[in-house]
Amino acid sequence: MGDGSSAMTMILDGKVHAERMLGEVTAAVEARAARGLRPPCLAVVIVGDDPASHVYVRGKVAACARTGIRSVERRLPADTPQAELDGIIAALNADPLVDGILVQLPLPAGLDSKRALHAIDPAKDVDGLHPVNQGLLLEGLPGLRPCTPSACMNMLRAHGVELKGIRALVLGRSEIVGKPMALMLLEQHATVTIAHSRTRDLPALCREADLLVAAVGRPGMVEGSWIKPGAVVVDVGINRVEDPALGEVIFAADPGKMKTLREKGGVLCGDVRFQEAAAVAGAITPVPGGVGLLTIAGVMANTLQACQAR
Amino acid sequence: MGDGSSAMTMILDGKVHAERMLGEVTAAVEARAARGLRPPCLAVVIVGDDPASHVYVRGKVAACARTGIRSVERRLPADTPQAELDGIIAALNADPLVDGILVQLPLPAGLDSKRALHAIDPAKDVDGLHPVNQGLLLEGLPGLRPCTPSACMNMLRAHGVELKGIRALVLGRSEIVGKPMALMLLEQHATVTIAHSRTRDLPALCREADLLVAAVGRPGMVEGSWIKPGAVVVDVGINRVEDPALGEVIFAADPGKMKTLREKGGVLCGDVRFQEAAAVAGAITPVPGGVGLLTIAGVMANTLQACQAR
Repeated sequence: MGDGSSAMTMILDGKVHAERMLGEVTAAVEARAARGLRPPCLAVVIVGDDPASHVYVRGKVAACARTGIRSVERRLPADTPQAELDGIIAALNADPLVDGILVQLPLPAGLDSKRALHAIDPAKDVDGLHPVNQGLLLEGLPGLRPCTPSACMNMLRAHGVELKGIRALVLGRSEIVGKPMALMLLEQHATVTIAHSRTRDLPALCREADLLVAAVGRPGMVEGSWIKPGAVVVDVGINRVEDPALGEVIFAADPGKMKTLREKGGVLCGDVRFQEAAAVAGAITPVPGGVGLLTIAGVMANTLQACQAR
Repeated sequence: MGDGSSAMTMILDGKVHAERMLGEVTAAVEARAARGLRPPCLAVVIVGDDPASHVYVRGKVAACARTGIRSVERRLPADTPQAELDGIIAALNADPLVDGILVQLPLPAGLDSKRALHAIDPAKDVDGLHPVNQGLLLEGLPGLRPCTPSACMNMLRAHGVELKGIRALVLGRSEIVGKPMALMLLEQHATVTIAHSRTRDLPALCREADLLVAAVGRPGMVEGSWIKPGAVVVDVGINRVEDPALGEVIFAADPGKMKTLREKGGVLCGDVRFQEAAAVAGAITPVPGGVGLLTIAGVMANTLQACQAR
């Protein structure tokens, strides 16, 4: 950074906010125990050997241990037939001791992830991706809400970001982040624009945004010059960059990242060019260390909520 | 109108588009009959004596007759207990001869309209307002979609309005029009902004919109100077204006409406000042004679769809 404006930039530390959320869940689980109630239980279903998926599942299981939530893992081989997956989900739906069910995505080729997600009992759908839960969100009614946008909202609230009347731009229109995030911001009275790959003159649109949420999965797509001075930037993208030529472009202001790329053959970065954006923004989440950690905390909060609601 | 630009303005006639949609439903019902299949059946539940509600229900029943859809009316007194309404909905859900169920809103005080709407079998929810159907819409999956925005999209498609990459502004964030309309426009690759009562500098935001959908229920709120030249304007509001002082302001360019207000003590108008906007817009729906007629056609299309899906 190293210029005057950067001194004003607040780094929104995902670890701090995730710890706060996990601490709240832990306290609630302890309060249940004090009342003689069993701990919440999360069942995680993982199919196949995708290394990244196993990393995520380990993170979730560790967060369960940390908060006192009981976790059950169902590890299935990559060639598991759909009918068997359906049967396992049905059994978990019927199990009175299971409060939350999470099917780790992506599923191996040949398995229908929509079918799996729709088979989960909405009351146990801690990912918040079942149509019933998405519909309740659209209606502004209580339900299990998608973890990532829900945890981002929790962070914005804790950070005291005023959302009423602000211009918010959500970049990306997935049902996991973009669309539910837009609905949650709308619920808090932001004026919300949803932009995507077909959007024209995106830089100008971004420059109007008091809050920019980037969730497209394109490394370093959002340049520093696109950020409105003082804006809050939430970077949901987690991308691995290995190409030095791409690195030279998107890490022009970030010699540290470029060094890591050269030394390790790859580096994680968000959808936003962090150093460029941090020089302009009022607050920004880093990658890694930002929204990724919040998502796991969101799963724990949803598991507790599902348990309390039963 | 009477100036140069108005010659270019296309009036999007709700009657024409509603007739086209009803004609398609009629043809499909006839095709069913030719294959020996029974006509679709719509059950309409109306509680109490609200005159406007009875007008709407008559319109729907007439559209059924027109298209060959069988209609069943359940007229209930205003003091009907919730349990009785629940029981009637449950019986209609269970009736294999009923394809669509519509509970006319608003319900009298003391009845919970959310509860009633959520009690309808999603497969028979021809209003498209059940959380399951809203969630399927959010996911971009097939389902029964809210009638008004769905019929507006049908009209825009029939009129050949290019939506890909355009800036669309949806004014209003109800679950009946605003939010589902935004999702449908997003699905067609528009860049969508949702604005509302808390939005700052609304006129400037409107002036950026290639498509403006007004659904707030505030008569004449959108002024002609807010419209981007050549924009498409869809006016979902149906408001009755009785106050001559308000009329003087919002009908300044519309002596005809002002005359009607004076002579009849009231006049219908949309959320947009029609004559002012028509002088600037490329295409615009009038009120009355616009979206209101489309909504009824949307109910018929949904009843057919619910019937075909069973």
